[in-house]
Amino acid sequence: MGIPILVNGAAGKMGQIAIIAIEQDPELDLVATAGREDDLASVIKKSQAKVVIDVTSAEAAFENTYTILMNGAYPVIGTSGLVPEKVAELCQVAAERKLGGIVVPNFSLSAMLMMKYAKQAASYFPCAEIIELHHEHKKDAPSATAIKTAALIAEYGHKQSTVSHDYEVMPRARGAEYRGVPIHAVRIPGVMSQQEVIFGSPGETLRIISNIASRDAYIAGIRLACHKVIYLNELIYGLEELI
Amino acid sequence: MGIPILVNGAAGKMGQIAIIAIEQDPELDLVATAGREDDLASVIKKSQAKVVIDVTSAEAAFENTYTILMNGAYPVIGTSGLVPEKVAELCQVAAERKLGGIVVPNFSLSAMLMMKYAKQAASYFPCAEIIELHHEHKKDAPSATAIKTAALIAEYGHKQSTVSHDYEVMPRARGAEYRGVPIHAVRIPGVMSQQEVIFGSPGETLRIISNIASRDAYIAGIRLACHKVIYLNELIYGLEELI
Amino acid sequence: MGIPILVNGAAGKMGQIAIIAIEQDPELDLVATAGREDDLASVIKKSQAKVVIDVTSAEAAFENTYTILMNGAYPVIGTSGLVPEKVAELCQVAAERKLGGIVVPNFSLSAMLMMKYAKQAASYFPCAEIIELHHEHKKDAPSATAIKTAALIAEYGHKQSTVSHDYEVMPRARGAEYRGVPIHAVRIPGVMSQQEVIFGSPGETLRIISNIASRDAYIAGIRLACHKVIYLNELIYGLEELI
Amino acid sequence: MGIPILVNGAAGKMGQIAIIAIEQDPELDLVATAGREDDLASVIKKSQAKVVIDVTSAEAAFENTYTILMNGAYPVIGTSGLVPEKVAELCQVAAERKLGGIVVPNFSLSAMLMMKYAKQAASYFPCAEIIELHHEHKKDAPSATAIKTAALIAEYGHKQSTVSHDYEVMPRARGAEYRGVPIHAVRIPGVMSQQEVIFGSPGETLRIISNIASRDAYIAGIRLACHKVIYLNELIYGLEELI
Repeated sequence: MGIPILVNGAAGKMGQIAIIAIEQDPELDLVATAGREDDLASVIKKSQAKVVIDVTSAEAAFENTYTILMNGAYPVIGTSGLVPEKVAELCQVAAERKLGGIVVPNFSLSAMLMMKYAKQAASYFPCAEIIELHHEHKKDAPSATAIKTAALIAEYGHKQSTVSHDYEVMPRARGAEYRGVPIHAVRIPGVMSQQEVIFGSPGETLRIISNIASRDAYIAGIRLACHKVIYLNELIYGLEELI
Repeated sequence: MGIPILVNGAAGKMGQIAIIAIEQDPELDLVATAGREDDLASVIKKSQAKVVIDVTSAEAAFENTYTILMNGAYPVIGTSGLVPEKVAELCQVAAERKLGGIVVPNFSLSAMLMMKYAKQAASYFPCAEIIELHHEHKKDAPSATAIKTAALIAEYGHKQSTVSHDYEVMPRARGAEYRGVPIHAVRIPGVMSQQEVIFGSPGETLRIISNIASRDAYIAGIRLACHKVIYLNELIYGLEELI
Repeated sequence: MGIPILVNGAAGKMGQIAIIAIEQDPELDLVATAGREDDLASVIKKSQAKVVIDVTSAEAAFENTYTILMNGAYPVIGTSGLVPEKVAELCQVAAERKLGGIVVPNFSLSAMLMMKYAKQAASYFPCAEIIELHHEHKKDAPSATAIKTAALIAEYGHKQSTVSHDYEVMPRARGAEYRGVPIHAVRIPGVMSQQEVIFGSPGETLRIISNIASRDAYIAGIRLACHKVIYLNELIYGLEELI
Repeated sequence: MGIPILVNGAAGKMGQIAIIAIEQDPELDLVATAGREDDLASVIKKSQAKVVIDVTSAEAAFENTYTILMNGAYPVIGTSGLVPEKVAELCQVAAERKLGGIVVPNFSLSAMLMMKYAKQAASYFPCAEIIELHHEHKKDAPSATAIKTAALIAEYGHKQSTVSHDYEVMPRARGAEYRGVPIHAVRIPGVMSQQEVIFGSPGETLRIISNIASRDAYIAGIRLACHKVIYLNELIYGLEELI
């Protein structure tokens, strides 16, 4: 018998991927699915799920996490829409209930490791830039992951600004800048999601590139979260906390 | 006996590379060198050079080309600083003298082929972006080559603008734009000069990347220009006209 | 009214892509589909299709092309399984019927342009190597496209062998070799199909990379073939003949 | 006053780079240089150097390290030619003298971080391959760094072999293999030294790329070693032990 798992939001694209992730893993058991029309608390009780994967919506995530914790299950919440104050509230609920939980803005292991290594490498190189490519339908630029990576590099690497807009022959050529870390956003068909961090020092570069070609990329991260969440006794934010 | 060649501006970095290019090629003979202190016309006459490579300065290029043509030699002029009107004047002088000549803003074959293929590919893809990387001491951004490449793509591909600055979470993230072709300029130590053109359509991308790691990159282009210029009977602009 | 088109093999994955290609193009009209259970000749006659896209199987391709030509339609045949002798036979049939046709081993425009430019660039660089990456389920290595590209480079570039297995610290490290062009095959999950050709000369490299992320990559090539085939009066092999 | 440093092997290419590294760093002071003709022990005593950078030869490295330790200085030894037994001997000498020291096969920070992150990432992905590119004059293939990286990935990632030579259409296409990790070696002009590790799992890849464009790449590593060695009380192997 594997860990009994309930998927909330099972009808959506991410829900379908969560179900595939569970089915691929002999140590995970899908005991129930739920959707908008179900009462989550009842389904948890009835199914005796130990872990609940919630991939519904940013709006429902807070309420659902609360419900999951109050019903004694471990939440794995797939959203980038929870603001820090709401996460803090949920941390307190988890602490009171002595339950672990995890909020995951991005289930991709390659994206997570890219951020982790970028943070580590930041102090060894004087300069870094980020180049992210996404499909043409992604309208916001740069991506949330790019901004978070730049913030990590700036925090751990104390970069000086290399962006001098004075010398731009054409305006904006040097891209956006987050505390000395330039970010360049490409939007082009034929690419789903790619992010490159390039570090440079005299004579050498180090490049770390995460490429996501399909939603299958989230399977390994979902499995990892399910396996580890039941050993936590606090609610954490980000898959990187697990590795 | 190879083609007798004179290098003007022999003491500079490009002059040194020109001399290496000639020495490597059994069909080219270095018969003389000249510098600022020499009278170019006299050196041409005395050396009986058939081809004169001029790698002096943007300021001297016009005058020198005129002198070379008036003395019956074929000019190979390495500068990106000649404006179109001046080039047109020189074309007329060359035509009158029935001599060939070539003005070369960039001797790199990889850069030239990259531009050529980008121009050809433009009509097959709805979108294209340019990412160029240079060392941190290059202040102007984007590079002249990037702008020229974007112009070729726009002319032959009729791109629609994909850059919507409305959606920029951080200003400038989508880069500069030349008639619908975004250009991103990275300035980082550890890189000398690289340019990538990425074309995208649903499900696929085509990327063409020129990387220049040292001035040796100019040797092949210098040799090519010397070999071909003596068969021209007009003055042309750009190595791409030869291939 | 657009060009009336029939898709044979409509139930397969490539057939579905062909249908999408037609539906996206206002100048193409899907007038019928056919499968294994249908009599192709009857469906052509009944539908009055002008172009027939055949994406059935290597085994059926010859017979189907013959049928299409004999019924007065222009065949677009998507297979890499037709040997040169069979193609030659079909060429003769097309010539007799004064009909155009095209056999397309790979509908990807990026792969086709990559091969075309590799062929052109071959004469400008002393060395070239091919690195191709495919998903882990592709068992044959290297890919047919890699071998064809190497053959083009060898033919147009007269490469000397750079592969010296004498110096291999570990056997096979320098990869396969086709007439002086090394080929390296990577098989890894997370990649569908990518091929890079790297050309090198002192101080610089030129890299041309085709990446196919999904079957959508074939849409543009299918549309191109349908548009152009009706102006042909012979049967040709390879999309590159059209561009 | 900075740390007083002596460079042994100052006339060689690496010696020149070591001198540049010291001159660039206000906290490091070049107090002496030595060469083959000098008595190293005397120069150490006379100069009162605290750290000795030895960039002579694999043959001289053991003897020199011994001399440096016996004269109370901290050795920074730049060689990949010391076998494990010799390193072990030197460790013992350092321990007896209560002195730190470091043997550095590769001073490049990007190469070192690439290996470190590859080791860490190995357990998160089922497959990994290594692609290394070097200039055409490097005859051994694959490089020592590639083999070491493959060994780290195999040790920490328990890879299964993905290389099936049965399916090779052309022999050697799948490259060399070290315990389930394929290695592909490209030898081409225009590249000095580059190594890429690609990790793949369904739907995504993580790529880590170190590129060395000139010997300047070793400056940061030399400075790092000099700064840290004086706080060590044992002799260590590899720059990665410092970070």
